[in-house]
Amino acid sequence: MEESKFTHISNEGNPQMVDVSLKSITRRTAQAQSKLIVSREILSQLKDNDIQTKKGPVFHTSIIAGVMASKKTSELIPFCHPIPLDDCKIDIKVVNDEIIINCQCITTSKTGVEMEALTGASVAALTVYDMCKALSHDIKIVQTQLMSKTGGKKDFKRE
Amino acid sequence: MEESKFTHISNEGNPQMVDVSLKSITRRTAQAQSKLIVSREILSQLKDNDIQTKKGPVFHTSIIAGVMASKKTSELIPFCHPIPLDDCKIDIKVVNDEIIINCQCITTSKTGVEMEALTGASVAALTVYDMCKALSHDIKIVQTQLMSKTGGKKDFKRE
Amino acid sequence: MEESKFTHISNEGNPQMVDVSLKSITRRTAQAQSKLIVSREILSQLKDNDIQTKKGPVFHTSIIAGVMASKKTSELIPFCHPIPLDDCKIDIKVVNDEIIINCQCITTSKTGVEMEALTGASVAALTVYDMCKALSHDIKIVQTQLMSKTGGKKDFKRE
Amino acid sequence: MEESKFTHISNEGNPQMVDVSLKSITRRTAQAQSKLIVSREILSQLKDNDIQTKKGPVFHTSIIAGVMASKKTSELIPFCHPIPLDDCKIDIKVVNDEIIINCQCITTSKTGVEMEALTGASVAALTVYDMCKALSHDIKIVQTQLMSKTGGKKDFKRE
Amino acid sequence: MEESKFTHISNEGNPQMVDVSLKSITRRTAQAQSKLIVSREILSQLKDNDIQTKKGPVFHTSIIAGVMASKKTSELIPFCHPIPLDDCKIDIKVVNDEIIINCQCITTSKTGVEMEALTGASVAALTVYDMCKALSHDIKIVQTQLMSKTGGKKDFKRE
Amino acid sequence: MEESKFTHISNEGNPQMVDVSLKSITRRTAQAQSKLIVSREILSQLKDNDIQTKKGPVFHTSIIAGVMASKKTSELIPFCHPIPLDDCKIDIKVVNDEIIINCQCITTSKTGVEMEALTGASVAALTVYDMCKALSHDIKIVQTQLMSKTGGKKDFKRE
Repeated sequence: MEESKFTHISNEGNPQMVDVSLKSITRRTAQAQSKLIVSREILSQLKDNDIQTKKGPVFHTSIIAGVMASKKTSELIPFCHPIPLDDCKIDIKVVNDEIIINCQCITTSKTGVEMEALTGASVAALTVYDMCKALSHDIKIVQTQLMSKTGGKKDFKRE
Repeated sequence: MEESKFTHISNEGNPQMVDVSLKSITRRTAQAQSKLIVSREILSQLKDNDIQTKKGPVFHTSIIAGVMASKKTSELIPFCHPIPLDDCKIDIKVVNDEIIINCQCITTSKTGVEMEALTGASVAALTVYDMCKALSHDIKIVQTQLMSKTGGKKDFKRE
Repeated sequence: MEESKFTHISNEGNPQMVDVSLKSITRRTAQAQSKLIVSREILSQLKDNDIQTKKGPVFHTSIIAGVMASKKTSELIPFCHPIPLDDCKIDIKVVNDEIIINCQCITTSKTGVEMEALTGASVAALTVYDMCKALSHDIKIVQTQLMSKTGGKKDFKRE
Repeated sequence: MEESKFTHISNEGNPQMVDVSLKSITRRTAQAQSKLIVSREILSQLKDNDIQTKKGPVFHTSIIAGVMASKKTSELIPFCHPIPLDDCKIDIKVVNDEIIINCQCITTSKTGVEMEALTGASVAALTVYDMCKALSHDIKIVQTQLMSKTGGKKDFKRE
Repeated sequence: MEESKFTHISNEGNPQMVDVSLKSITRRTAQAQSKLIVSREILSQLKDNDIQTKKGPVFHTSIIAGVMASKKTSELIPFCHPIPLDDCKIDIKVVNDEIIINCQCITTSKTGVEMEALTGASVAALTVYDMCKALSHDIKIVQTQLMSKTGGKKDFKRE
Repeated sequence: MEESKFTHISNEGNPQMVDVSLKSITRRTAQAQSKLIVSREILSQLKDNDIQTKKGPVFHTSIIAGVMASKKTSELIPFCHPIPLDDCKIDIKVVNDEIIINCQCITTSKTGVEMEALTGASVAALTVYDMCKALSHDIKIVQTQLMSKTGGKKDFKRE
């Protein structure tokens, strides 16, 4: 039987976790980004000058939801290892007609925080959606991707 | 103080849940879709004839992760109500160079399953990512959106 | 053997859940309150005119944590039934040197939301503590109690 | 393609949830049983006259763990529906050299509590194991099975 | 913009986690205490000579609930780090008309267990309430506070 | 008062966690096994030549559920410590009329993964049951036991 190129699939074709017990503990970071496009109606509320009141809770709630989800990554993604998350910072900004969510995670562990960063960004984006959907369903999450990671076998930086 | 147009933000500007206690119980459905673009290298594995072994576990694992996440929606999205999920079906197919994930949820409840469908699709997409990332980081989730919903105040169908 | 007066303890002296399968479904509410006393140093920050920035996140974060915990009540309290929570509203205000947290829950169910209201208030109070503790450990939760409940066998109102 | 006889596997061979949205709500019960065989050394402690101190916490802890796990069934078993659990009663007794755990669950729902009863019994058995393992590893869970169920399409009673 | 004095609030006024990735790992302890005042009717049961039967399950159940909640602290408090909890011991005693709950937590980690101790004590107190409330609603949690902590930047001991 | 021989029971007879803060971190493994006996009707499906379709999802789903449950062990078993799980591998095979589930866990921690291995095997067995029960209730879990463990105070190997 040919060796599987997917580390999460055994040579017998079954799904599996990856043994990290012999890997060394290093400081690892990852940054992921989600983007939403929302309707003009929603944007007009978010950009309102009364930004602390109106925008505040939407973005605060989404930041909190994203951080809490990032801590739950190993419960959500079947073969992710439970790791000590040293930090998860999420920031959300509006650029033109897009809402851009950046999620940066750090761990000191045998495995990285790529999925933690992606999960944090994704759930923050879903929460922006949930907070705004009563106004309009004209909301799409148009992107979720890894931006960079460091500390593992090979660093990555999206160009 | 002006009335908030966001149901999840109180007139005082605080985040809040919506009271559904007086709404009527109806059968409600929602369908969401996520799409990923993956590298040719990954696609070549997924489309391999040995599809039961190679593709099987990636997509089976992602379906299972998506369904389990859909059941966790009210734990992830701060103001979602816990509801009895009557069904959550996920299917994944490869069309050209895209992996397309459809998630359909059904409930019989006072509130809908829009967020459950979006969460199921999103976590299935994140799991496809996790299962494939050892091969290449050339993977992007390029879309997560609601496709349709029925049974609430107003039906929705994306055109 | 004498009959146990504690519904959560069997006649044999073992802990137990209460069977609610034959109870009728009614709309039930409960309101609980937690109070914290914090140091003057913390209070001066919370009452600052720059209230949206400084106070905002502490209280927003605590409201969100309390609502999410209220949804988790049956996971935390061993013999609480899982119920559909129709609403959970938390408000936080500063009165003199006390931070007062009110949590009101509603369900339409066979059993009430007393523990959900108390759990929501308690975790909101713990979160206020966590958000402020870097400034001073001079914080005490001085009270958590039920204020009222309706819809069960007997209404309750604290005088 | 031949129709799958497994309701949790689609005709395409993928794992799936079962749609219960059109099923009627009935009162459903299920009873499951787990048995452990433990070493004479452990049994001598459990049967000691000082039974409230020595036996008490082992069995109390196991009852509580079993009930809490039963409430988590839909988080553990991928295609189980989240349901309102009306009751979960666990009792544990020692018969000869066996520890016998009975778990009875009740719901009023569109689907039954068979998996909830089996999960409650299993986790109670695992907890007995955990509480006793410092004394001896001579412990085996020798059986977990459904004893009866009522209220669904077809009643079941093990003979 | 003035620098925030709240470590959980960014200089931009958003809620945030604290990066502990560069902190050193030390053995850290914390002890918290909750107190309840209950009615004479409940106390008479708890103080009954038949203490193993009557009091036993109430306090055993509360100890177990408190320990399990302490392990869930990072799921409940939005910006708490997930940490390996080395120990969580809870004891409950009746002094005059008060039920006093002490919760002591230990970790070997980059951050302390202050919130774990407070959460464990709080949920144990809520469980005492839940176990007794069928008898009387004359129960109040009158205090939850940190008693001491060691191993972090600065030790703390309440006088 | 006689010293308790149960590490999870205090000298006062209360349930308790074990302090591991001063234990040393070592690589620890554990392997557990569950066995099911299923009806001829189910076996004939599982052994069918169309094994990728029919058997695949049942066993894939069970492997995934077992691994995810193994990561949840400290949430299910009251006094288990939360630990970083370095690996959890589950394999399932059919030998004669038995379905045999092996679960091997690895950690690098102060305490072992015995309960993680047993929990992973148990929940995988429960999932096999759930996936097959629509065909027949003639399924029993006939064994769950520890097979071996290494890295702690004393190695264990079942003969």
